[in-house]
Amino acid sequence: MALIVQKFGGTSVGDVERIRNVARRVKETVDANNQVVVVVSARSGVTNELIARAKALNPHPDEREMDMLLSVGEQETIALTAMALHAMGVPAASRTGAQAGILTDIRHTRARIRSISGGDISAQLNAGKVVILAGFQGSSETGQVTTLGRGGSDLSAIAIAAALKADICQIYTDVDGVYTADPRIVPNARKLKTISYEEMLELASSGSKVMQNRAVEFAQKFGVIFEVRSSFNHNPGTIVKEEAASMEDVVVSGVALDKNQTRIVVSDLPDRPGTAAKLFQSIAKADVSVDMIVQNIGRKGLANMTFTVARDDTFRAEQAVANFFGDGEKGAAHFSADDIAKVSIVGVGMRTHTGVAAKLFESLASAGINIQLISTSEIKISVAIAPDDAEEAVRVIHKAFALED
Amino acid sequence: MALIVQKFGGTSVGDVERIRNVARRVKETVDANNQVVVVVSARSGVTNELIARAKALNPHPDEREMDMLLSVGEQETIALTAMALHAMGVPAASRTGAQAGILTDIRHTRARIRSISGGDISAQLNAGKVVILAGFQGSSETGQVTTLGRGGSDLSAIAIAAALKADICQIYTDVDGVYTADPRIVPNARKLKTISYEEMLELASSGSKVMQNRAVEFAQKFGVIFEVRSSFNHNPGTIVKEEAASMEDVVVSGVALDKNQTRIVVSDLPDRPGTAAKLFQSIAKADVSVDMIVQNIGRKGLANMTFTVARDDTFRAEQAVANFFGDGEKGAAHFSADDIAKVSIVGVGMRTHTGVAAKLFESLASAGINIQLISTSEIKISVAIAPDDAEEAVRVIHKAFALED
Repeated sequence: MALIVQKFGGTSVGDVERIRNVARRVKETVDANNQVVVVVSARSGVTNELIARAKALNPHPDEREMDMLLSVGEQETIALTAMALHAMGVPAASRTGAQAGILTDIRHTRARIRSISGGDISAQLNAGKVVILAGFQGSSETGQVTTLGRGGSDLSAIAIAAALKADICQIYTDVDGVYTADPRIVPNARKLKTISYEEMLELASSGSKVMQNRAVEFAQKFGVIFEVRSSFNHNPGTIVKEEAASMEDVVVSGVALDKNQTRIVVSDLPDRPGTAAKLFQSIAKADVSVDMIVQNIGRKGLANMTFTVARDDTFRAEQAVANFFGDGEKGAAHFSADDIAKVSIVGVGMRTHTGVAAKLFESLASAGINIQLISTSEIKISVAIAPDDAEEAVRVIHKAFALED
Repeated sequence: MALIVQKFGGTSVGDVERIRNVARRVKETVDANNQVVVVVSARSGVTNELIARAKALNPHPDEREMDMLLSVGEQETIALTAMALHAMGVPAASRTGAQAGILTDIRHTRARIRSISGGDISAQLNAGKVVILAGFQGSSETGQVTTLGRGGSDLSAIAIAAALKADICQIYTDVDGVYTADPRIVPNARKLKTISYEEMLELASSGSKVMQNRAVEFAQKFGVIFEVRSSFNHNPGTIVKEEAASMEDVVVSGVALDKNQTRIVVSDLPDRPGTAAKLFQSIAKADVSVDMIVQNIGRKGLANMTFTVARDDTFRAEQAVANFFGDGEKGAAHFSADDIAKVSIVGVGMRTHTGVAAKLFESLASAGINIQLISTSEIKISVAIAPDDAEEAVRVIHKAFALED
């Protein structure tokens, strides 16, 4: 008998018919002689309705009250899911985050998990029940309702799997696994059987948003093996786990694309120590995450600093650069911002294989695609290119590394 | 500075605009230098929506899961009400039943309150905050979510008022007080300034459903003074409190009408000890409440037993009587059931005034209304009459006792 955690997102429990489907799938897992903990989100749309009512009453609602408000979405779903299971003859009991002993800090709307006691979940499982746990929520030491922020339900699922030492955590979503590239761009992209936590993290930060990194990091930290799979079919998904020796034979696991980046070029900076630090302090103060950074020396020994940010952050990044200039760094310096796309190849095999970068650049050159920026990590190489070239770049790279099915 | 508990029902918090109105009224009370605890119900309609989803998934939903489900209605309202108060610059914090330490037994969907610690409500009040408490809900010793059944939010309000020793508990509703008769039937009916708990209980059980008796009984037990008033205007309502000496000067406080009763006549029963006990045991076993009971001796020394039940219980009552006959009491006995209306006069002054019954019967006789059954308590006289005569009966009685404005 295995202990399986199954997490279903808002779309999978969007209405009573879909909740019934979820219950059917849980019943199949129970009938195959497994213990099951189900983690569910709020029905899709519910959270937005609640937020709309809150904003109608208060344009800047208190975060504590937002948590009180939003946590009702999951509480509704767990009760309905339990009822659907009962109707199929499956014993089941729902638990809120507080009841499951999901203890968090008090940072409302973005709380961090401190510990998980599990409450009486193990006792319920041993009594032959399915336990349905409300995702996204916890409670503070003083008994306040807290929520875990974006992607919180994935985190709840991974965390309860860790606490209960579950054999596997299945994340049901609207894609049926992690692919070598987005199948909408590369029709013969291949679904990966397994992938390491690190690759999953790099793919996510490179634009393949299957899951929030927070949940993946938690899984990595506690060694929770999880599977990303579809709630709409029974295909096996992609297993995410600690890197295995065999994985290194595969040089590149996938090609990721992030089309929502802006490149900012700050030119003619005085080339002296501390300039870069000052510039990026100003940007950090504006709460903007910087992705790729390249510095080089331009005319007259002045430095050019080029970096990329998420497109949504462009305005705040520009203000931060303006503040930096206002802060004494005037000179002849100026800056410009334009849209770019970031294409990345990810794979743990890069650590031990050479020539990966060369093959990447060759493939783009042969397609006449100009590279504007390059950045690398141990298991990733990213290039910034013109957005119009992005999809073609993904296709030629996918072919060059023979990732197709 | 007074401590005031204000309870608003589902209609009063039915949408964001009404929630804002509630917040305005609370702010007025705060601005008049009072501490305020607000108790709110679920938005009207929400509970029915939740029940509809539950029934779609399971025709007989588990009661524990129903409590988990239904308690989200109030949790939404408390958060929204707090946000509305914040928008008006009033410090406020919401609390669930569990957070307020409303400890109940484990009888899901109809839990009884065992104790109320109040949680940190006093501390919040002393810190200058309005506390918004979710009505209708509590939690069991093992931390399960429970609900208090019909009229539960009134009970929550009275109970928290008792626990906090509030100066008064205001029950805001869609009528603006307790009247000498239903103003739709008697246009010149008068709003009562004060009324005793006992009269309120008798009026409620006689068809004037302003509040559930459970909340009134709780108020009486703990001496909580409460006021029934309208959430749609600022008129003073009706104060309900312990009987005062001056109340006895008023013989009759009001006339109540219950049109939803059925009279059941069981004829030709053997007139021997134990027959009545056996009959009503059978009815009690069917979970049917009997209201008026009259026994008399008919032809050949056989007994006739006449009693009334709520119309909704007619079928179960008939089945119970049939079971009773099946249980050995055959003989020539038979039974019939027909609709009746019950008209009652209520007043603590009856205890010390004579001739009240005579005046009641006279007034009905002069209007040509036939009395089918009579029952009396210390502060109430009820008569069962034909439904078609009901409204006319209320009017002539109201006039006879000079209750008009």
